[in-house]
Amino acid sequence: MAEHSFQAPKGTRDFYPTDLAMRRRMEDAWRSASVDFGFDEIEGPTFEHLELYTAKSGDGIVSELFSFRRAGGENDYALRPEFTPTLARMVAAKAGGLPTPVKWFAIPTMYRAERPQRGRLREFGQWNIDVLGLEGAAIDIEVIGVAILALERLGLTPKDVQVRVSHRAVIAQVLAALGVPSERAADAMTLLDRRDKLDAAEFHKRALALGLASEAVQRFDLVARAAQPLANSFANLAHAAGVELEVFRELEALREAAQAAGILDWCTVDVGIVRGLAYYTGTVFEIHEVSGAERAIAGGGRYDGLVELFGGPKMPACGFGMGDVVLSNVLSDRGLLPKDAAVLLPRPDAFIISAGGDADSFVPTLASRMRRAGLHVRTSYKATRNVGKLLSDANKARARFAIIIGAEIADGRVALKDLASGEQRWIAIDEAVTACARVLGAP
Amino acid sequence: MAEHSFQAPKGTRDFYPTDLAMRRRMEDAWRSASVDFGFDEIEGPTFEHLELYTAKSGDGIVSELFSFRRAGGENDYALRPEFTPTLARMVAAKAGGLPTPVKWFAIPTMYRAERPQRGRLREFGQWNIDVLGLEGAAIDIEVIGVAILALERLGLTPKDVQVRVSHRAVIAQVLAALGVPSERAADAMTLLDRRDKLDAAEFHKRALALGLASEAVQRFDLVARAAQPLANSFANLAHAAGVELEVFRELEALREAAQAAGILDWCTVDVGIVRGLAYYTGTVFEIHEVSGAERAIAGGGRYDGLVELFGGPKMPACGFGMGDVVLSNVLSDRGLLPKDAAVLLPRPDAFIISAGGDADSFVPTLASRMRRAGLHVRTSYKATRNVGKLLSDANKARARFAIIIGAEIADGRVALKDLASGEQRWIAIDEAVTACARVLGAP
Repeated sequence: MAEHSFQAPKGTRDFYPTDLAMRRRMEDAWRSASVDFGFDEIEGPTFEHLELYTAKSGDGIVSELFSFRRAGGENDYALRPEFTPTLARMVAAKAGGLPTPVKWFAIPTMYRAERPQRGRLREFGQWNIDVLGLEGAAIDIEVIGVAILALERLGLTPKDVQVRVSHRAVIAQVLAALGVPSERAADAMTLLDRRDKLDAAEFHKRALALGLASEAVQRFDLVARAAQPLANSFANLAHAAGVELEVFRELEALREAAQAAGILDWCTVDVGIVRGLAYYTGTVFEIHEVSGAERAIAGGGRYDGLVELFGGPKMPACGFGMGDVVLSNVLSDRGLLPKDAAVLLPRPDAFIISAGGDADSFVPTLASRMRRAGLHVRTSYKATRNVGKLLSDANKARARFAIIIGAEIADGRVALKDLASGEQRWIAIDEAVTACARVLGAP
Repeated sequence: MAEHSFQAPKGTRDFYPTDLAMRRRMEDAWRSASVDFGFDEIEGPTFEHLELYTAKSGDGIVSELFSFRRAGGENDYALRPEFTPTLARMVAAKAGGLPTPVKWFAIPTMYRAERPQRGRLREFGQWNIDVLGLEGAAIDIEVIGVAILALERLGLTPKDVQVRVSHRAVIAQVLAALGVPSERAADAMTLLDRRDKLDAAEFHKRALALGLASEAVQRFDLVARAAQPLANSFANLAHAAGVELEVFRELEALREAAQAAGILDWCTVDVGIVRGLAYYTGTVFEIHEVSGAERAIAGGGRYDGLVELFGGPKMPACGFGMGDVVLSNVLSDRGLLPKDAAVLLPRPDAFIISAGGDADSFVPTLASRMRRAGLHVRTSYKATRNVGKLLSDANKARARFAIIIGAEIADGRVALKDLASGEQRWIAIDEAVTACARVLGAP
């Protein structure tokens, strides 16, 4: 048969052991933060009926999806581009049968048929957090808090990343005060969402097209680009927008809740954050590296009407998604990934070495016994019986102990070498499990 | 917008928290057995270029695949139906650059566009184990041994499941001795593979069609259906097949290696095991529930030519795949899954209760502090301040401790209740982390 040179599809990744160890490090932080906050993990199918996505987003979304049909089948499917429709479908399927609140997390793989670029691949992992059945600033801050806990466990600080928060009701009132007619509010939000991608002249042109007076455009621009610590007073913002301070009451509530949860220093107010998706109804937020060099690390907010849209009960809801691609870029930018990812691989408890002769026949039996006792055990597959060379392999594997089987096995004894201290002693081969077991955590 | 009633695609699953906990239990056993045996975890893309599968299996496989093309794109892709082509591609991509042996495991999601039935879904998880670069019975038994360790950790014993082993060279010699012409050997193996799906008359008819004499058909049938402990002598089998005992030498070697590894009682010889896939070259095996009621739990063997086929170096290889669907059926049949999967969910370290009034404002701050310290903390979201009712919620959540914040918070004190013993004592709120931290394993 002809030889082929096969490659991974464009925008997908092969994870060799050290690559996967890096990814697991992020997933472990996601999972442990989720569990510590009392979220339960769920998972759904990798692909869904295509209509699950077109029902909400219209047929326009099809070009961004990997969609397909089984040969001879009648249904159109699509690889999931986001998890929220699956989540809403799962909640709807249980109708009112779930205890409230529903606090779920998931770490699904996602797919987008877009052009791959920095921070954006066609296949990626995404952490999803959702609280359903509750509303209020304290819940929104709990959702933001679990994201922060994971980032903190990965070594990030408020100096590295900030949660940029806003609120749909605040945005709507500011736009109204600036003179945006209510029928153009959606267009104005789209413009806000794109403000960083447009130059000043283009932004002005589009703002004028919304029907704003020239002076209002200036204020609109100022408000759209203003960002300040959530801890600060909103007086300046209110003044710039020409609104009463009272308009910011939802952000005041977020501030109080963030203060109580001890995460106020992680939060920035940025009225220009609207999130592209039409389904957000209250708080909206994005997490960004402070320099703004990368895409958003995470995005989310409150979406009170969504579960109902998928046939479920009326349920308030708040959540976010955080992808692995931008996050790993940020961690790398900040020097928070180990230079040699091999240190993230599991450490062997013991590395068994045969000094040759009869000793060889004891290796599989001892290895098997130790593994069945829950120890991570490696052995050499090399033909050499040069103990020095094999000890160097044991060190390279980062084993805690080497067990050397030599002529003394005739008396049932083997050498146990602590590879950290270099200390070596004789033990009965039957003691090998207990001699190495102490490295395990208590049961 | 209209309401829809959406469902998961046929043959896929929604995993609610307890469903996922069951699946994770299997994955944890797979992962821990892999690590203890010194395997490193890898992962690849969920979909591959379609040619990766057609190159090996021909275009006939396309009807069993979910294949697709990006709108406007030029490449055909397919959701992976098995992991081995991805593995071979990843090894080939590193050419000779990987240290030998390569010992990798993966727990990928797989897809098959077949009709769903018991034990077979369209989307499923599959544990893959592969050793590349080494040959010999000891390696084959190491591969089988890691499968057994995982099954043992899930509560299965040799009385529940058996590894049915055979060897391609043994099968080939037995077929030759029976009088199957070498050019019909492949057909004969296919017939062997289907023997359990055919009635006796049909089997006979097809065996005759291979060119066997009537007496040889009887012997073929007998050999095909014979199964005996690997520990037993092969004399009877050799006699039935009309071959010298010497023909079984590869199985003798497997027996010795299984004995050394302490897993001989898990192994049955079944010459009729050939595995459908054409790429196996030596040892082949399947793991079955002893009653034969379910499909194979796992299947694998030696496939020495495969990496080369995908453009890589010449490398001997041995591995297996074990799916989650049949395994969970077997565990369920054997009563090895908890009746209430909720016991598999992570236990909260603490459940914080507010007795009302000022106490409420302390809850988010304390919860946040404890979570940042690595504790799993839940709180009540109910309006009630009925401590008895809330304690019952804490018990239902299986929390180890309840922390009750009442009027004594004015003195900085809270009640700590051990929910197992019922014992309750007063602690300073600042001691909450240390008071609950003892439940964590030592670092």
